[in-house]
Amino acid sequence: MSAPRPRSAGCADVGGTSARVAIADPSGRLLVRGEFPVSEHAGDPGGLIDRLAALLGHLAEQAGLSITALDALGVGIPGPLERAAGVVTLSPNLGWHDVPLRSLLSARLGGLAVHIDDDANTAAIGEGWLGAPAGEPNWAYVIVGTGLGAGLVIDHRLYRGAHDGAGELGHTTLVPDGPRCNCGNFGCLEALASGTAIAARATAALERGAESSLHALAPPITAAQVFAAAAGGEALSASILSSAGRHLGWALANLVNLLDAARVVLGGSVGSAGGAYLEAAEAALRRAALPSLAARVTLTPSRLGDDAGLLGAAYIALYPDQPLPRTRPR
Amino acid sequence: MSAPRPRSAGCADVGGTSARVAIADPSGRLLVRGEFPVSEHAGDPGGLIDRLAALLGHLAEQAGLSITALDALGVGIPGPLERAAGVVTLSPNLGWHDVPLRSLLSARLGGLAVHIDDDANTAAIGEGWLGAPAGEPNWAYVIVGTGLGAGLVIDHRLYRGAHDGAGELGHTTLVPDGPRCNCGNFGCLEALASGTAIAARATAALERGAESSLHALAPPITAAQVFAAAAGGEALSASILSSAGRHLGWALANLVNLLDAARVVLGGSVGSAGGAYLEAAEAALRRAALPSLAARVTLTPSRLGDDAGLLGAAYIALYPDQPLPRTRPR
Repeated sequence: MSAPRPRSAGCADVGGTSARVAIADPSGRLLVRGEFPVSEHAGDPGGLIDRLAALLGHLAEQAGLSITALDALGVGIPGPLERAAGVVTLSPNLGWHDVPLRSLLSARLGGLAVHIDDDANTAAIGEGWLGAPAGEPNWAYVIVGTGLGAGLVIDHRLYRGAHDGAGELGHTTLVPDGPRCNCGNFGCLEALASGTAIAARATAALERGAESSLHALAPPITAAQVFAAAAGGEALSASILSSAGRHLGWALANLVNLLDAARVVLGGSVGSAGGAYLEAAEAALRRAALPSLAARVTLTPSRLGDDAGLLGAAYIALYPDQPLPRTRPR
Repeated sequence: MSAPRPRSAGCADVGGTSARVAIADPSGRLLVRGEFPVSEHAGDPGGLIDRLAALLGHLAEQAGLSITALDALGVGIPGPLERAAGVVTLSPNLGWHDVPLRSLLSARLGGLAVHIDDDANTAAIGEGWLGAPAGEPNWAYVIVGTGLGAGLVIDHRLYRGAHDGAGELGHTTLVPDGPRCNCGNFGCLEALASGTAIAARATAALERGAESSLHALAPPITAAQVFAAAAGGEALSASILSSAGRHLGWALANLVNLLDAARVVLGGSVGSAGGAYLEAAEAALRRAALPSLAARVTLTPSRLGDDAGLLGAAYIALYPDQPLPRTRPR
């Protein structure tokens, strides 16, 4: 007996600053969508869950559907999490600890099936469904924003590892005596090439009295401000982005040498921002990867942008546990 | 229709110094075996192929079989190679360039089916069939001898990558301004932690006039001599092995963080030699891997030793294109 034909699904992408919610049809069209800030619910999973459920109900109504007409709800959320159990083990950004998200949401939604996954994984799944690498068997999605993570697609499936822990590219050690990382180690890629690292590098340079037009900005300096200044020709910002991008490219070369990935898709606010960061990453990747692989690997910024995570959350709800499609969508 | 039941297969492990040949039964018992030095055939693929074919014929006779009674011949050989085409693209150690090994061997053996694979891959397959990780879905085999490579097992299959190029752990860049590697890059793991690197580090230290009992040995110093001296308490040797092992452990931590491999099996003459090298590698792995992964990953020296490559070559001949068994052998 084959699985029933999917109808439509709810999807949510819960980030560090906002939660985005939508209803998707089986082809990945987002029929209706909404958003709310999560900062109001820091340390209050119940409040966030209530708000998410209410927004989903409102969106279903807008789409002329009832919650029970949905196949399921898919949720991407920063991990670590226990996917099978549906529990968010720890989410420092949300202030959560051992939250049984799946059962709480399902109870709040009249028993609707809920699937949860790490937000880097859902974004990779979204890209593999409808983005540049759709239909390709072996590639990697790398998300760079506040943090840095990866989703690895191997033989058309998101690869999760022995304990659902794969893809921690951000904790690749590059410089053993480098800056301290949130994980407690030193010189991890995340501490060298993430948005947080870029902002910290700029702040430290300004505190050391480096010459820069960034001094005119009110602290704290953000990665977005460093990107904007570099695009306008500001030298300190350009140099910080080049250094961060070089470290990213170095880690991508190691990934490509190990996995022979045909493509790396860069997503997230920093990963898709281009400029000196992307240029330096690409140059370092081509230089440090083995020549036979360097000549063939493709580095592309995400085409789906912020929607990748929502679409991936829809995919895990519509097609639970299925591999990615082997063909590109028409 | 199911595949015919395997009977027995020839297998060969062609290394930089010797070629080992055997006949294996379907359970991985090596019925008869032989060996010859390959140095006599440097730059002479025809000579090596003749000798390999003659030895296989002799072994078959010893086992009371004819060549035509074999299912196939599997060959592990240092790459890079084009597996599907059966061509060794380049083998610097053998002095080969674009050798159509599969068709030449098959023609010399009356049309016997021949399967070839990279020697790190065949060793990984042998370990996955009959070694410590047999039956496990996600783990890595790392071979350290003259060079350094890896075979990645993902969901019970050897993972080959987008262009049969996966597993180049030896060309992970660790120290961008480090020693030059054979690949043309600088600071690759192979240039920091292989047998060649250990010997080079010892030679350079002696040339700089470092105090050491190694001065009593006739040059060139080998990695085996450094291991022997370190085991006897020689300080320079112990320090060289600790540094090499620390670099290996650092790269293994990056691999474990990326792939969430449940186990790493260390093979090859250096990888399975233990001592200060293994201790330093294990300490660095546990320190640099994320705590949740560091606590669970197992690091084990190969149990099959040199036979891993022969057994993996037998497996690809007996069970071509099949995944590894999901259960441990009885």
